[in-house]
Amino acid sequence: MTTGVRRRMGVEERRQQLIGVALELFSRRSPDEVSIDEIAAAAGISRPLVYHYFPGKLSLYEAALKRASEDLAGRFEEPHEGPLGARLLRVMRRFFDFVDEHGPGFAALMRGGPAVSVGGAHSIRHVSATNALIDSVRQVAYEQILSHLDITEAPPRLELVIRSWISLAESTALIWLDGRRIPRAELEVQLVHDFAALTAVSAAYDEEMTALVKRMVQDEPTDGPFADLAARLIALAG
Amino acid sequence: MTTGVRRRMGVEERRQQLIGVALELFSRRSPDEVSIDEIAAAAGISRPLVYHYFPGKLSLYEAALKRASEDLAGRFEEPHEGPLGARLLRVMRRFFDFVDEHGPGFAALMRGGPAVSVGGAHSIRHVSATNALIDSVRQVAYEQILSHLDITEAPPRLELVIRSWISLAESTALIWLDGRRIPRAELEVQLVHDFAALTAVSAAYDEEMTALVKRMVQDEPTDGPFADLAARLIALAG
Repeated sequence: MTTGVRRRMGVEERRQQLIGVALELFSRRSPDEVSIDEIAAAAGISRPLVYHYFPGKLSLYEAALKRASEDLAGRFEEPHEGPLGARLLRVMRRFFDFVDEHGPGFAALMRGGPAVSVGGAHSIRHVSATNALIDSVRQVAYEQILSHLDITEAPPRLELVIRSWISLAESTALIWLDGRRIPRAELEVQLVHDFAALTAVSAAYDEEMTALVKRMVQDEPTDGPFADLAARLIALAG
Repeated sequence: MTTGVRRRMGVEERRQQLIGVALELFSRRSPDEVSIDEIAAAAGISRPLVYHYFPGKLSLYEAALKRASEDLAGRFEEPHEGPLGARLLRVMRRFFDFVDEHGPGFAALMRGGPAVSVGGAHSIRHVSATNALIDSVRQVAYEQILSHLDITEAPPRLELVIRSWISLAESTALIWLDGRRIPRAELEVQLVHDFAALTAVSAAYDEEMTALVKRMVQDEPTDGPFADLAARLIALAG
């Protein structure tokens, strides 16, 4: 704007730009298929200059993954207001937005594939770093759900329900990505219902979980996703 | 018995014995921690002799993994007789038997960790071979469930429910292994219930799934796991 000449970026600014460009490319295709040359071209700089900021594709991939993880973890944040079902549904929408935006990269990452094959000699350290990153995002999701349930220390059955539901959400998203044969809006609602259903199943045999479920549904509106499911299940049984 | 002298094993017999010994060790501790020396000692042969049959720890690990996969896949086989809930419960018991027998090895494998770090330079090929093996076991589980439902071509919603439930069973088993804070018998029943619950949730919005669920539960006995769950959920709601 001021001079008409493209101003030179600072080191950190350039690094951040490269991470953004790389994340975009790693998201759209399997990271295996993305070359440093492409990243350089997309960033409008030379290949040697990319190596000036990142020692190799692996470190750029890890930086992109870290940014994506922080992005995803941020989408789990939801105000503690209103019925729980509606809160969870909003989070599911943002989760599917993320999955949609990062489709092939998300699929490759969760299948453990390219996280390794971009690595070469660094693959062992890299795989454990990648697993730790994925686990940290799962942990954020877990803690967010606990905080919305107003619980600080989860009893074992609740921990199991929440953690296994998180894995259900991951696998549902992965299966959706493979062909997108079911509308994502349906799956967003379904996962909210699945959470209620898995909690109810666990509560059927445990008093502590029963009390929790009763507390969970007491503030649900009659037109919310939990009440809707209950009505449909009763109709199904009848 | 006949001579008092230990007879020499044939090549294939010795290989099979080594695979069995290795699987036992890889099951009891994280495969990372198991050395070739230990395997040799447990098999009662010298370290060089182990290398005579297997080029390295990785190939022995892969052979052990293959045997474990076949073992697990075999446990999914269940006669097509009697109510579905009871069939699935018997399969869940055998699944948890397997998880119990191979605890640390199963956990390490499913987390993608040691499958890599035993690999060194071979890790890329190895990881994809390992993933393919795990996927083939999942596929056997998927096809078994379809066959018990008398379905050859699953509609997308049914495929999603079955595949995502399989991942739920895996994560439930992994969470159980981490401390065993919930009796496994409870989780075996819970997973049968979870299957019914996830199917019912999907059926609540889809006619094809509704028909399937109705057919699924029509032959269920009033003292079976599905009826038990339904009664408990009604009690919970009331």
